[in-house]
Amino acid sequence: MIKGIGAAAGVAIGKAFVLPNWEWSMPETQVNPVDLAQEFERLYEGIRTSKDEIEFIKKEFREVVGPEESSIFDAHLAILEDPVFMSEIRGIIERQYKAAEVAVKEAIDHFVAMFDLLDDEYMKERAVDIKDVGNRLLKHLLGAPEVTLPSDTKPYILVAKELSPSQLAHLNPNYVLGIITMAGGKTSHSSIMARALGIPLVAGLENKLQSPIQTGDFLIIDGDNGNLIINPDEATAEHYSVVRDRQRQKREQLELLSSVAAMTKDRVRMRLASNISSVKELDMALKYGAEGVGLFRTEFLYMDRKTFPTEEEQYEVYKLVAEKVGKHPVVIRTLDIGGDKHLDYFQLPEEQNPFLGYRAIRICLDQKEMFKTQLTAILRASVHGNIKMMFPMISSIEEVREAKAVLEEVKQDLDRQGIPYDRKLPVGIMIEVPAAVMIADFLAEEVDFFSIGTNDLVQYVLAVDRMNEQIAHLYHPYHPAVLRMIRTTVESAKAAGIGVSVCGELAGDERSLPLWLELGVSDLSMSPQALLKVKHRMLNTTASEAREVAKQCFRNREIAESEKQLTQFLDKHVIQHVMKGNA
Amino acid sequence: MIKGIGAAAGVAIGKAFVLPNWEWSMPETQVNPVDLAQEFERLYEGIRTSKDEIEFIKKEFREVVGPEESSIFDAHLAILEDPVFMSEIRGIIERQYKAAEVAVKEAIDHFVAMFDLLDDEYMKERAVDIKDVGNRLLKHLLGAPEVTLPSDTKPYILVAKELSPSQLAHLNPNYVLGIITMAGGKTSHSSIMARALGIPLVAGLENKLQSPIQTGDFLIIDGDNGNLIINPDEATAEHYSVVRDRQRQKREQLELLSSVAAMTKDRVRMRLASNISSVKELDMALKYGAEGVGLFRTEFLYMDRKTFPTEEEQYEVYKLVAEKVGKHPVVIRTLDIGGDKHLDYFQLPEEQNPFLGYRAIRICLDQKEMFKTQLTAILRASVHGNIKMMFPMISSIEEVREAKAVLEEVKQDLDRQGIPYDRKLPVGIMIEVPAAVMIADFLAEEVDFFSIGTNDLVQYVLAVDRMNEQIAHLYHPYHPAVLRMIRTTVESAKAAGIGVSVCGELAGDERSLPLWLELGVSDLSMSPQALLKVKHRMLNTTASEAREVAKQCFRNREIAESEKQLTQFLDKHVIQHVMKGNA
Repeated sequence: MIKGIGAAAGVAIGKAFVLPNWEWSMPETQVNPVDLAQEFERLYEGIRTSKDEIEFIKKEFREVVGPEESSIFDAHLAILEDPVFMSEIRGIIERQYKAAEVAVKEAIDHFVAMFDLLDDEYMKERAVDIKDVGNRLLKHLLGAPEVTLPSDTKPYILVAKELSPSQLAHLNPNYVLGIITMAGGKTSHSSIMARALGIPLVAGLENKLQSPIQTGDFLIIDGDNGNLIINPDEATAEHYSVVRDRQRQKREQLELLSSVAAMTKDRVRMRLASNISSVKELDMALKYGAEGVGLFRTEFLYMDRKTFPTEEEQYEVYKLVAEKVGKHPVVIRTLDIGGDKHLDYFQLPEEQNPFLGYRAIRICLDQKEMFKTQLTAILRASVHGNIKMMFPMISSIEEVREAKAVLEEVKQDLDRQGIPYDRKLPVGIMIEVPAAVMIADFLAEEVDFFSIGTNDLVQYVLAVDRMNEQIAHLYHPYHPAVLRMIRTTVESAKAAGIGVSVCGELAGDERSLPLWLELGVSDLSMSPQALLKVKHRMLNTTASEAREVAKQCFRNREIAESEKQLTQFLDKHVIQHVMKGNA
Repeated sequence: MIKGIGAAAGVAIGKAFVLPNWEWSMPETQVNPVDLAQEFERLYEGIRTSKDEIEFIKKEFREVVGPEESSIFDAHLAILEDPVFMSEIRGIIERQYKAAEVAVKEAIDHFVAMFDLLDDEYMKERAVDIKDVGNRLLKHLLGAPEVTLPSDTKPYILVAKELSPSQLAHLNPNYVLGIITMAGGKTSHSSIMARALGIPLVAGLENKLQSPIQTGDFLIIDGDNGNLIINPDEATAEHYSVVRDRQRQKREQLELLSSVAAMTKDRVRMRLASNISSVKELDMALKYGAEGVGLFRTEFLYMDRKTFPTEEEQYEVYKLVAEKVGKHPVVIRTLDIGGDKHLDYFQLPEEQNPFLGYRAIRICLDQKEMFKTQLTAILRASVHGNIKMMFPMISSIEEVREAKAVLEEVKQDLDRQGIPYDRKLPVGIMIEVPAAVMIADFLAEEVDFFSIGTNDLVQYVLAVDRMNEQIAHLYHPYHPAVLRMIRTTVESAKAAGIGVSVCGELAGDERSLPLWLELGVSDLSMSPQALLKVKHRMLNTTASEAREVAKQCFRNREIAESEKQLTQFLDKHVIQHVMKGNA
């Protein structure tokens, strides 16, 4: 058994298909001066093709994984438009009469060497991007064949040195049982994509194999634990096929729960809604029985575009979502850009600490016309369903009042034009800045509901950027300080008689359920993938027992205690469940 | 009256001295190939001189302003060692036979153009740095004269297009009454330096003057309000000379308070200690009557060096500080790097959000040997005075326990070696992460005292990086959420019977005094410059009245209310005081 990095969960068993490495073969260096125009033509054609390809991958990635992660590809597109990089390439063709591919190769080498020399992490990352994009351009110039995967054979386990997201996006999940890569780790783009596609992946096997895997080898990969077994004995194969079948069965059983009401064994009813970023995600959420949308991230409407979306474009999407959801509520969060989310056509300042910077409501209150366009579209769509509106990143009552004043202006405009809208459209705020928790009692008197965004809240409370690997071990959603902040928020909402829901990732972690039962939070919103897992957990939980565990959690002093107790409570339940199944 | 930017406070009245702009005059472009070696010699000599000069400015800046701000000059030094920049210059000399200064000029132009083209703020800032450094190098190559300022005339107001920190560092404050610059703003390095030197400065006058100021013009500048008056009438001159004299008198009166005990009119005694970064700052603090050091930022010991300071080096400084302070306490904060503070010889990861990243205690618990060296030095120095130790950036009880365990190990090592130390050395923590406030009751049972660091606390609670100009208007130390956090912290400390002090900038804002009186915080620590101002305020305040204002502040809901009420309370007091003075 070889230990790699479990980058996407699940067990896969099957024959290996080894992806061949393709070697560049460079043409003659010198070009006849009379053919220079042709070289330029080839260069521009290559750039066009590369751009199209990146746009395609970006779109795929956005749809499968989400709009936030797809923004990496914007940097790649920018390189193909970078005047310095391009003038370097053109200069080599023009002055040294070299072929386009040679010029590209030399320009990549030159820039990579230069950025590497600068001994600056930021520059080094730019070097990696330039290499990536340059190699893509080179591939098109050299007419390198797209590596094709067999689709006429039996399903296989794909073995590759490394896989780009574009290669992954082209995979047919019906033929690829699992993937192993020599390079990569949990946070590589390919791993993120594999998780979204539900394909088990073990990465980071570089230097761990005694001899290379051959196409046809029999493999077992265990993406949960990062294990790879080559040509296993029969007992091992049998063991893993039981594990795999049980996983599959569990998935199928879970899907049966889609239409079952979400309630505990002792009949405490909760409402499980979904966080969505796109209509595609909404469809998945509805398939899994989401009772509405608890967080509609509207950023996706603004991304992958050249200009701000028009009122009409937004209206159509909000209307479609509201109609698809029907009687259940759709909570539309107004634009939350800044931080790590950018738009091509709206220049944000370069910031030292973007998470503590110009983002979300701070931008919207600064860019009132843009904000009004969105509010108008939401109001207009409100007659087509059960729409609520929510402002992100609120840290004071002044911000709430200012945002509501803008909403009031928009309503008066609509009134003047005789355009109908839901006059009682509920208005809420995200609770994700520590300041909002500290003044939650004041804020509760200004709005109709709270939605707790645990992801940002945890980051700010603990002063830990969870994307920062150096300190990722300090990111603890079950930290006693976080639990107290959540409790304060809920208590303030209840005291004021307004609604409160949770839409951060914590809501989709089934271990957190006892906390909500104890606090009396009955509205949770989570990713579509988490819905059935949480519902299953709920159906097998006794609220009265769960509340006892949660009570202890709210008394804990140490970081790890609550997570441990909640995990134990979950495990105990799982054992009970399995025993019942056997009985 | 012309309105500029008030970049350093104070009124100055006097004749103008206009700093001449110096024009480059380039030598013949071509160099005889046989003289190339000589050009290289000139280049290297210029680089050496430039480096020495930058080192000198950096040192000046560090001593006058502080170690944090001086780190900008490290970037400048790095450029003179940058292999890409240098090889570009060498290439031009070598291959094109150009003089060293011409090569430098062309290399600057080339890099500045390239970085500008990249349309990336980070790159643009690098371009500014390259220009700065390149011009310095050019100056030395061309043998340009150091602009000298008259020191044999009467004191004058300096008028310049722009002033570099190096020019400012060379100024004799006895001759320079004030400064006006066409370029610059509040946050330019020259403005920071002028404030530290106490020289009034009005900046940002570009395009605001109808005709240029001439040497000999009679000027009034008002750095508090950003006003400039050229050749004023007599009444105006008279008015401002009264203002100036009153400011001067007030400063002199304040200095008389150095040895007066800090207490309110109704005899509530407080202890005003100082935050220091260096022994030089300690001397100033003692001159102004500081009762000890409430925050010794030990970073300066680690900066401007090639390696970590040895135990012995640290011990000598801690001992010196403890001895100078005498019976009063010296609170030594263990190393707080990361965030915006870096060391040349200790590579920190490039971070997306360094304030939410790898810093302070997080680094120390990771780099135990470095941490132990500091703890050993502090313990050894503890027999020479009244030393306390404090850990920064604490967010959990685990971190406190881990830090204390390291301290225990160090104590055992000292015991084994028979080296004496204060066995009861008090150990405290900074309260600056919101999580620490939320679990202050738990933390209070682990340590001997709290010190509230309001600067970082405000940043995290409000999710506002105050160095970010785009959102600086959202940075509110008197925000109700912040006041509640402070109150929670103090109440937790009092309930546990441990000490609590405030060492953030808020403590040095005399308007905040009522808050501390109401909360019963009697230990404040602030910059040496703020000590007398705050003591003066205290001597003229009745605690019972102040507490009434503070009670209202803790009930406020809106961001601006408390600051407004506290300012009004201050103004009222000032009027009373002046009236008494007249009576």
